[in-house]
Order: sequence, then structure tokens, then C-alpha cells
Amino acid sequence: MSRIHDPAQLRRLIRDKSFDRPTTGQAGGYLQGNLVVLPKRFADDFLGFCVNNPKPCPLLGVSRPGERGIATLGEDLDIATDVPFYRVFSREGRRDRVADLSNVWRDDLVSFVIGCSFSFEESLQRARIPVRHIEAGRNVPMYVTNIPTRASGPFHGPLVVSMRAFSPADAIRAIVLSDRQPLAHGAPVHIGDPAQIGIKDFDNPEFGDPPVLEPGDIPVFWACGVTPQMAIHNAGPDIAITHEPGHMLVTDVPAEGASIGLNAAH
Amino acid sequence: MSRIHDPAQLRRLIRDKSFDRPTTGQAGGYLQGNLVVLPKRFADDFLGFCVNNPKPCPLLGVSRPGERGIATLGEDLDIATDVPFYRVFSREGRRDRVADLSNVWRDDLVSFVIGCSFSFEESLQRARIPVRHIEAGRNVPMYVTNIPTRASGPFHGPLVVSMRAFSPADAIRAIVLSDRQPLAHGAPVHIGDPAQIGIKDFDNPEFGDPPVLEPGDIPVFWACGVTPQMAIHNAGPDIAITHEPGHMLVTDVPAEGASIGLNAAH
Repeated sequence: MSRIHDPAQLRRLIRDKSFDRPTTGQAGGYLQGNLVVLPKRFADDFLGFCVNNPKPCPLLGVSRPGERGIATLGEDLDIATDVPFYRVFSREGRRDRVADLSNVWRDDLVSFVIGCSFSFEESLQRARIPVRHIEAGRNVPMYVTNIPTRASGPFHGPLVVSMRAFSPADAIRAIVLSDRQPLAHGAPVHIGDPAQIGIKDFDNPEFGDPPVLEPGDIPVFWACGVTPQMAIHNAGPDIAITHEPGHMLVTDVPAEGASIGLNAAH
Repeated sequence: MSRIHDPAQLRRLIRDKSFDRPTTGQAGGYLQGNLVVLPKRFADDFLGFCVNNPKPCPLLGVSRPGERGIATLGEDLDIATDVPFYRVFSREGRRDRVADLSNVWRDDLVSFVIGCSFSFEESLQRARIPVRHIEAGRNVPMYVTNIPTRASGPFHGPLVVSMRAFSPADAIRAIVLSDRQPLAHGAPVHIGDPAQIGIKDFDNPEFGDPPVLEPGDIPVFWACGVTPQMAIHNAGPDIAITHEPGHMLVTDVPAEGASIGLNAAH
């Protein structure tokens, strides 16, 4: 299947089960988001966690309780149907993979959409900066650091980072380009020695695939969207829903010069 | 003597010999420039050298032959009197230190004003990023690299870089802040291992003072205004005039959002 350029069209295909793959590389130029759905009882504290930790949790949008739409991200957008696959977590530790949330939807659910690194990686590739894990067909390596997040109520935990390695000259350009996309995690949080942020086994990341480095490369570490997932696990809500990794919520918000509520529908 | 905030007032004091010290820290918020004065015969090639190498040679202004003013940098500005001390180089290798160029001025001299790192270091300090050589009361260390410049006529030579060391988190901020000041050398050209750009003896820079590093620091290298001086030496004009290091030409151009010809007088 060829690439789909229009985010609204892609959401319709996903809704109709005509598109059921990762959204990587689709709807280029538009922000994609991590999805987090929590009961209203936890929503205020999780909102506080995002506001306290904008680098790992750049907020693209929040729904009203029970509502499945977030008009600022896309006029027709339906949280419960527009992600190819969801993960539904129960407090008992069950994890279900579902393609539609309609059967588990509740009137007290609040949806949070959090920026992800896809649009930033797109801008690296447009600038002809090699993104080594993509070229190697791997997932990005992600590490748990010794940097604490700022807790909010029951939400707490360490900062998780993703790592991309570059030649020093490309690392400088990647830092500058990523700083221009604060809704895609912004500038990195660390460069160089992994041990300085508590990474003990660089070759074996906690999440994703092992790192890819060329001789002379310098590792660059960005705040990662897995950070809120660890904080949610620590908070222990009775239900939590996220997207399946790589299967993101595609929005109508242009990635460059993004300004929520001005670019999208009404 | 207290700080002088107004660049035009500072130039008047320099012109009257009432201010004869380095201009570091004076007229905060305004661009200061390296001065290069060459005979017209060499001017086109040197202009080409600056255009070919904008990181070491960000052009703030160029005079017409024989003219001592550059109105876009300051309405009243007089190249021949408004720098505290000049260096006058002859082809025979003589170097004179003079406080006024009136006696050596010629009708064929063309003046080039090239951005320097002062305004960038100011913005680091405003962002509370420690600039170690300033805190240690030292000059910045400068190194000859194995990176060639793009030659223009007789002007050629290696890229010279200045080095500032930071904690990794501050290095990221310094990269982002410096990128916003393309007229003050812009983003760095290298980070990390000095040997990768041909620096063999990091503790003994070719110019300036030895480096100051704290544990865990990462060295960051910016293109440096000494680069054109080496290229001028290689070109061998019969006369060349520069500012005495630290004694810069102070302009009316605001450092932030600088746009030559729009901000300054008419």
C-alpha cells in the first residue's frame, strides 16, 4: 500500500479497518501522538504530571471526560477507533490488544494525546541526517535513566530516554532541529557518556533494539514517551489504555510551527 | 569606569581616547565585530572568502573603497578612530599597535566587519550557563584544525576554532542558543573528541589560554574569527589592518534578531 498523505484520510482508513499497520512514515508533516486514556479520578494528577514534565510528555490535547473527540487535533477524530491497535491494561496486570475501544469505553475516561518523536525524525531525514536505527530497520533503543521526573499525585518514576547516534557535526544539527519541535520532545536531555545519566549497559537498552553506532559517533539522548507509561504503571489505575507501540494517533496539526488550536479544524 | 550601555556613546568615548580598554562586556546586547582592512586589490577575493566561509566569517558590513563609515552598522561610525587599538601589518612582517588609523589611511582601503562571539557569550551568561574561561579570568582557547576553509583567490588556510566546555545539558542549551546568532559564528562545528578535527594537543591551544574543564564536561568547538587572520597572512597583502584582540568595533546592531540594515541607523 502506498503512503497516505492526508491525516484525515488515514484516520478514516484506520477506522474502517482498512489500515492496520504502524503509522510510521504516514501522513508526513503532521504530528502523531502517543495516546493515554485514564479514568477521570486520575486525570487531574496525570495532567499535572504532563505539565511538570513537558519534555517526555508534550501535551497535544486532552479530551473532556467520556468524550471521544478532541476537535483541536482533528475535526472528525475519534479516540476510540482512529488508532490501528490499542493496549488495554487492567489493574490485575492483564494486557489486551484491541483494534477498537468501543466495547471498553466508559463515560469517565479522559484521553491525553502526547507528542512523539516521529515528526522530529522526519525532519532529520529531510535534512539528510542519517537516523541509524531506521536505516538498520530497527526500533530506537530506550533506556531508564537515574533522572527523576517531577511527581504529580500517584504518578512518578524515572525519565526514560531514546538514543540516536550521529557524527558530531550531525549531532549539532540534530540538536538544533529537535529544539524547534517542542511538541516532539524538543532538544535532547543529554549527549555523550551514557553513565552520566545512570545508563549502565548501553548495549542492552531496557526497551527497543540495541543501539547502532558508526566509528566516531556521539550518542544523543532525548526524553521519551515511555516515561509516562512507567509513571502510569506506578500509579496503578483500574484501567489504562495506550496505543500499541508504533501505532499512533495521527493528527491534523502540522509538525513545523505547530500551534495547537490554530492549525487544526476550528 | 562603569559600563557603557549605548554603542554610539561608547564609540564617541573611544574616538576621544577616553576609553582605551577591551570592549568586552560593554554595550551589552549589541553586536561587536572583528575589523579587517585590506587594499582594494584584495577586497573582492576577501569578500569571496567571507561568503564562502560564513561560520568563521559572518559579514556584518563592508565599506566602499576609501570610505571610513559603514552607515548600516552605525550612522556616525568611523572605522579609523572607533576601535580602541588597531594592529597594522606590513608585508615585511612589521606589526604596529596604533590607537588611530588617520595617519595610515589610504584611499584604496576597504573595511570588513566580521561578527565575533561576544554577543553569543553574553546570551550564555544571561541563560546562567557558566562560561568557564570567563569565570577563570582567561582568554578562550583557540585551535588550528584539519578542516580546510573554502579558498578564494589568494585567501586560504585551515579553520580555527574556539573551545568552550560545558556539562552535557548546558552544551545542548549552548548549541541551541548559538544557532540563533548566525552573526556571532552560529552553531558549533564540532563537539566531543578534539582529535577528530585534528587537534593534537588539547591542553596547549595555538592561541589564547589553556582550556578550563570540570569533571564530566564535554568540549564544544565554534568557528573562530582568527580563521580569516590566518587566511590574510597566507594571502600576503602589502598592508592589512585588524583590531587588537579584545578591542572590537562596537555596532548599533542588536544582537538578538539581528538584521543588518534594518536595525541600525537608516
